[in-house]
Amino acid sequence: MRKRKVPDVVIRRLPLYLRVLSDLDPESSSIVSSYELGARTGVTPGQIRKDLSFFGVFGKQGVGYEVTILREELRRILKLDRVVNAGLVGVGNLGQAFLHYGADRQKEVLSREGLRMRAAFDQDERKIGGHVAGVEVYPVQRLPELIKELPLMIIILTVPAEAAQVVFDRCVASGVKAFLNFAPVKLEIPPGIRVRHADFTLELESLAYYSKEWEEDEGEKNFQSRTDQ
Amino acid sequence: MRKRKVPDVVIRRLPLYLRVLSDLDPESSSIVSSYELGARTGVTPGQIRKDLSFFGVFGKQGVGYEVTILREELRRILKLDRVVNAGLVGVGNLGQAFLHYGADRQKEVLSREGLRMRAAFDQDERKIGGHVAGVEVYPVQRLPELIKELPLMIIILTVPAEAAQVVFDRCVASGVKAFLNFAPVKLEIPPGIRVRHADFTLELESLAYYSKEWEEDEGEKNFQSRTDQ
Repeated sequence: MRKRKVPDVVIRRLPLYLRVLSDLDPESSSIVSSYELGARTGVTPGQIRKDLSFFGVFGKQGVGYEVTILREELRRILKLDRVVNAGLVGVGNLGQAFLHYGADRQKEVLSREGLRMRAAFDQDERKIGGHVAGVEVYPVQRLPELIKELPLMIIILTVPAEAAQVVFDRCVASGVKAFLNFAPVKLEIPPGIRVRHADFTLELESLAYYSKEWEEDEGEKNFQSRTDQ
Repeated sequence: MRKRKVPDVVIRRLPLYLRVLSDLDPESSSIVSSYELGARTGVTPGQIRKDLSFFGVFGKQGVGYEVTILREELRRILKLDRVVNAGLVGVGNLGQAFLHYGADRQKEVLSREGLRMRAAFDQDERKIGGHVAGVEVYPVQRLPELIKELPLMIIILTVPAEAAQVVFDRCVASGVKAFLNFAPVKLEIPPGIRVRHADFTLELESLAYYSKEWEEDEGEKNFQSRTDQ
């Protein structure tokens, strides 16, 4: 299959489609239309068809996509048809929370899709050699070696802000191309490396839009009902 | 200003624009074009103009938007021109990590934009009455009372999956309309309530696309260079 340069927004939607397809019972629904996929993901049917066409995947006009075929195709495109090992650096509160989260999800999603929490790293002697949610904690010095040996394809950064760039650079030098960064810092990112920032501030700021306007509850009822839809 | 029903994807982009505007030095750049905003946010200029037009905000053709005016307008639209109190329920690893994250961000972003981490809740006697990152921990029983008293406009759920629905329902009954949910569970959500799910599995699955294909490094070099752009 020839690939064109695919926009990242498209890549970000593929796991959504995959999740819907994985939730569908292939016994009862062997075909899914872009309209059904749209209703379940909140993406317009036209956008879904366009997204999939990037990968040469086309449904049957007026019918839709074969569920099992589309699911396998998406798994292949996302490289989730093989084992994808993830490593986590920084076993503080957030790192531990993430490892437990990963262990919970692994049962239902991660393992099915090929993602594996494979190793954790820290510099705290008391943590090294221990396990968190079944994942071994290694000394951070062994990061370059274990990236290549295990190997680790995705690195999750849960280190303090001041350590993030150094750890990131070391991982990039060892060949890692994909990162999920929780450290509240703007990283210098070389070309060809993909970093997703977990930015909760943006989430909270957009949620503020939907928050109830308590202060204005007493008066201005009219104004309220017009603007607070 | 008359509001039409604004799609959530638009609301989610507003904090991005606001961040860029807040980073701009109003002394040196009093005007910003949709092209510059686009280059800094990764959103197309046309989409930016369309997003802002939902709120009756239009730039000057061929010139752009006045930075200070657009910034204040966005803060007003997002209700960040007033105090927006957030409360967090579940002071485990993730909850503690989030409170520390919030405290770090508050210094640079949260306080400037009106968001406040105002209270935390837990059922663990040993945590109640204590503080995490400067935020007091209250007994979860006081949630309905304090939602109204403080008041709390956004609730962050960092409780275990099995507790999420009960806590969520209690908050909704007390008038909260906006939630950030970290519990890996599908909530039953009544109309008019907005919930954002922090779903790291989707992030990791889309990152897998960009991960290096280690297994195939030895052989198939040709195949690699064609597909792994």
